[in-house]
Amino acid sequence: MRDHLAFRLAYRGTAFKGFQFQKNVVTIQAKVEEAFARYFKESRRVHFGSRTDAGVHAYDHFVYFPKAFELYTALGVSKRKSFLSSLNFMLGNDIRIWEFGRLSSNFNVMEDIVSKSYSYFILSSPVEDPILTEYFHWIRHSLNLRAMRKAQRQILGTHNFACFAKSSGVSVRNSERGTTRRIYKASIVSRLHPQMKIGQILEFKFEGSGFLRHMVRNMVGTLVQVGEGKGTNIKSILRSGSRLEAGPNLPANSLFLTGTKIRAGLYAPLRPQTE
Amino acid sequence: MRDHLAFRLAYRGTAFKGFQFQKNVVTIQAKVEEAFARYFKESRRVHFGSRTDAGVHAYDHFVYFPKAFELYTALGVSKRKSFLSSLNFMLGNDIRIWEFGRLSSNFNVMEDIVSKSYSYFILSSPVEDPILTEYFHWIRHSLNLRAMRKAQRQILGTHNFACFAKSSGVSVRNSERGTTRRIYKASIVSRLHPQMKIGQILEFKFEGSGFLRHMVRNMVGTLVQVGEGKGTNIKSILRSGSRLEAGPNLPANSLFLTGTKIRAGLYAPLRPQTE
Repeated sequence: MRDHLAFRLAYRGTAFKGFQFQKNVVTIQAKVEEAFARYFKESRRVHFGSRTDAGVHAYDHFVYFPKAFELYTALGVSKRKSFLSSLNFMLGNDIRIWEFGRLSSNFNVMEDIVSKSYSYFILSSPVEDPILTEYFHWIRHSLNLRAMRKAQRQILGTHNFACFAKSSGVSVRNSERGTTRRIYKASIVSRLHPQMKIGQILEFKFEGSGFLRHMVRNMVGTLVQVGEGKGTNIKSILRSGSRLEAGPNLPANSLFLTGTKIRAGLYAPLRPQTE
Repeated sequence: MRDHLAFRLAYRGTAFKGFQFQKNVVTIQAKVEEAFARYFKESRRVHFGSRTDAGVHAYDHFVYFPKAFELYTALGVSKRKSFLSSLNFMLGNDIRIWEFGRLSSNFNVMEDIVSKSYSYFILSSPVEDPILTEYFHWIRHSLNLRAMRKAQRQILGTHNFACFAKSSGVSVRNSERGTTRRIYKASIVSRLHPQMKIGQILEFKFEGSGFLRHMVRNMVGTLVQVGEGKGTNIKSILRSGSRLEAGPNLPANSLFLTGTKIRAGLYAPLRPQTE
């Protein structure tokens, strides 16, 4: 069986109508397939294990073109050297492949993505930051960090996350695994704004087996309610399975897909070296 | 004598044609004066000790309205409480006052600004970052950090910086102090790109008595040449006094005015508290 050609993508979500192909709009999938087709002069569908929503950014979106590794190996030495920069040139300014590699033909997208990580960024400050504003959700008041951390720990482990999914939940037809996911790690990194010296920069971090649509934004929206002193009980929200029990869906512009872990032994990066 | 009303400003330089008032274009000065006039229903000129060029950003630009502190004290309690957010609302999205305070009428802009700090941000990486690109100058190759640090130390102290000024230097008429400045501190902070794990994020930091037009961008342009292994000698460039000897002027979008130190005892902030 022929191996796959895999890419790790970084992109600025603001420039796209989300990841997945849709007719007549600019999506990340469409851009990546278009660049591939221009470079190799043949059309292929890209495969992926994550679909970021419109406006969500990524530093580590893992995608692959099935059985395409041989297209890369067939290139001459000088084409292999410039492969990454040529493809990146074709992708325009808002997407970058920062690593590519060989992915085993044994890879199974449902089983071999060990985890994904997301970060949600909030500036909690009486004054907004005009420079960070594209990537930070601004909350004018201060938040109770201790209460939010305590609530966030209740998200750890395996749960039915229907309450945090878009609308009343994802139908089982749309997702083989239904709405059950496992959260391995969750934390909140907090620091004083390094320049303005007022307000806190908060990074809500999650690593899990997978995430439903809007799940991170809804979880952070619920944790913010806790931080505001509203008597929100995460355990009972999870048990209820109802979207109506959870907090508001926060804006997409402050969410980043930051990591995709692949089962060891299946993926070998050909990391570009600084010249 | 009546005290001044001082503001510390943060702004996204991309949105403006520089700091200083010019007819028919949007500048930071114009915006700040306009907001002041709308709020207090009286027109005043703002005073300042720094003029950032078009595209340069700031986290700590210190400005003041002469003899205007009494306008603030004359406000009622509830107006004083909402003072900062009302003014910020009038400033639009790209400028924020994050601190205001009382500045002594003894303040002298030429003598009592102890130092200013600037930072210039470079991403040295084989792959550009589509998210940081608005604020980082991208250099595709790696740079010799040790050589740049050694060269940067030669900038420390008092020098005639004509070689790093715009064109062949600033005429004495335009600047009371001519082209001599003192650099107190200079350093380069380097770290691996925290997300992409390839490439270095470099922050070139300078603290000095003052800076000529284009001076930081020209100094960093010259240090980058050193980092590229070009046999640039900072001491002889400084001695030459010639702009032609120094390196290229780097783009404005990666430069930040990060600090303004006021002589102790002259300025008392009324710092907004997180609600």
